[in-house]
Amino acid sequence: MTIHNGRGRLYGLGIGPGDPELITLKALRLLQAAPVVAYPAPDTGDSLARAIVSPHLKGGQAEIAIRVPMVTARFPAQEVYDQAAEELGEHLEAGRDVAVLCEGDPFFYGSFMYLFGRMAERFQVEVVPGVSSLTACAATLGTALAARNDILTVLPAPLDAEVLKQRLQGVEAAAIIKVGRHFAKVKQVLDDLELSDRAHYIERATMETQRILPLDQVAEEGAPYFSMILIHRRGEAWT
Amino acid sequence: MTIHNGRGRLYGLGIGPGDPELITLKALRLLQAAPVVAYPAPDTGDSLARAIVSPHLKGGQAEIAIRVPMVTARFPAQEVYDQAAEELGEHLEAGRDVAVLCEGDPFFYGSFMYLFGRMAERFQVEVVPGVSSLTACAATLGTALAARNDILTVLPAPLDAEVLKQRLQGVEAAAIIKVGRHFAKVKQVLDDLELSDRAHYIERATMETQRILPLDQVAEEGAPYFSMILIHRRGEAWT
Repeated sequence: MTIHNGRGRLYGLGIGPGDPELITLKALRLLQAAPVVAYPAPDTGDSLARAIVSPHLKGGQAEIAIRVPMVTARFPAQEVYDQAAEELGEHLEAGRDVAVLCEGDPFFYGSFMYLFGRMAERFQVEVVPGVSSLTACAATLGTALAARNDILTVLPAPLDAEVLKQRLQGVEAAAIIKVGRHFAKVKQVLDDLELSDRAHYIERATMETQRILPLDQVAEEGAPYFSMILIHRRGEAWT
Repeated sequence: MTIHNGRGRLYGLGIGPGDPELITLKALRLLQAAPVVAYPAPDTGDSLARAIVSPHLKGGQAEIAIRVPMVTARFPAQEVYDQAAEELGEHLEAGRDVAVLCEGDPFFYGSFMYLFGRMAERFQVEVVPGVSSLTACAATLGTALAARNDILTVLPAPLDAEVLKQRLQGVEAAAIIKVGRHFAKVKQVLDDLELSDRAHYIERATMETQRILPLDQVAEEGAPYFSMILIHRRGEAWT
């Protein structure tokens, strides 16, 4: 382990899927102790990550919103992370710890890895795992994600319909994440594979705005980014 | 929602991967409030789940060890869960809440589903998601599990070598769980696919006995049940 005398430490804190009570004791402790708190935020408007932890903030911490354009690019502009790494790096150089808030878990399809990739060689970084949307959705739906020797496949909905179809063919257990505006495509794939009966749709799991809907009641263009479909071939037969 | 007047409520509490500080505020609150706490335990000896939460127990709670034979059968004898459901059901009928401790997350390859399947129709059941070993291993290794539109595949190591090989061929991101005594088989598959360079081995992540080892330093018959191998084709290039 390299010694980084006098430098601050960077924390990637998994803050869980949305319910402020689904943060871990460890993430809460590190969050409240850090002099600087950073979080992703949209171009304009409020940060969801900050909103999740807001009941736990006591004031007096410097805050850095990492404003990521969500709509224009398929993946966030890397310049945003170059700049954020520089800004956070200045605090670390000055000896101040920085806690970066990560919705769900930092390394489960999270944007923290862009900061990690830029900063882990220069600074001490600790990643604190969090409750991911994957397990939060299963818990809320009351349907097991995977059991015994099931193979579990996690598929991002932006993938092409043909790829989704190929990977869902004969699947045992699957989670389709980031459904959002790809809902109609995903629904068609599930219908084609006759998997719709086994599919469970949920949006914003554990948040106050959480909704569970039958697939045929989801407005085709209306699914939010934080929506997921879980599929299990055995259905509810867990005994 | 059915009304269950006067009955207790059953909680399946994800208590996280091993570090007692990786329990959520919600699971901790429900754990401490429940008059009855149940947990899986081996035939003889101590329960790992109970050990994980032991710093949080204040005494005065009834405890039920659900003793599951680990070695003899490939999957636990279902009679154990029939009997446990009956015992827990008596507490619930008498109006006492019961908190069942689940290592990691209750629905991510957990045994709680066997109780859920037996009890969810008769009693109110709430499942509280937890930090799974999946994200805990990635956080500890400092290697992202999945990013962007990666397909993530979770493979239980007890699967046949041919199945593992087929599913790992050309994989983007994979986690091989429950490695344990299947290590030699898994290692051979990874070697055959030339994936060993990209594979990260970790055992008992976030526990005091945690170890990270290069694949070729793991004793072939020595891996514990709580061991995992993470693979990502991109390696560490997350920028």
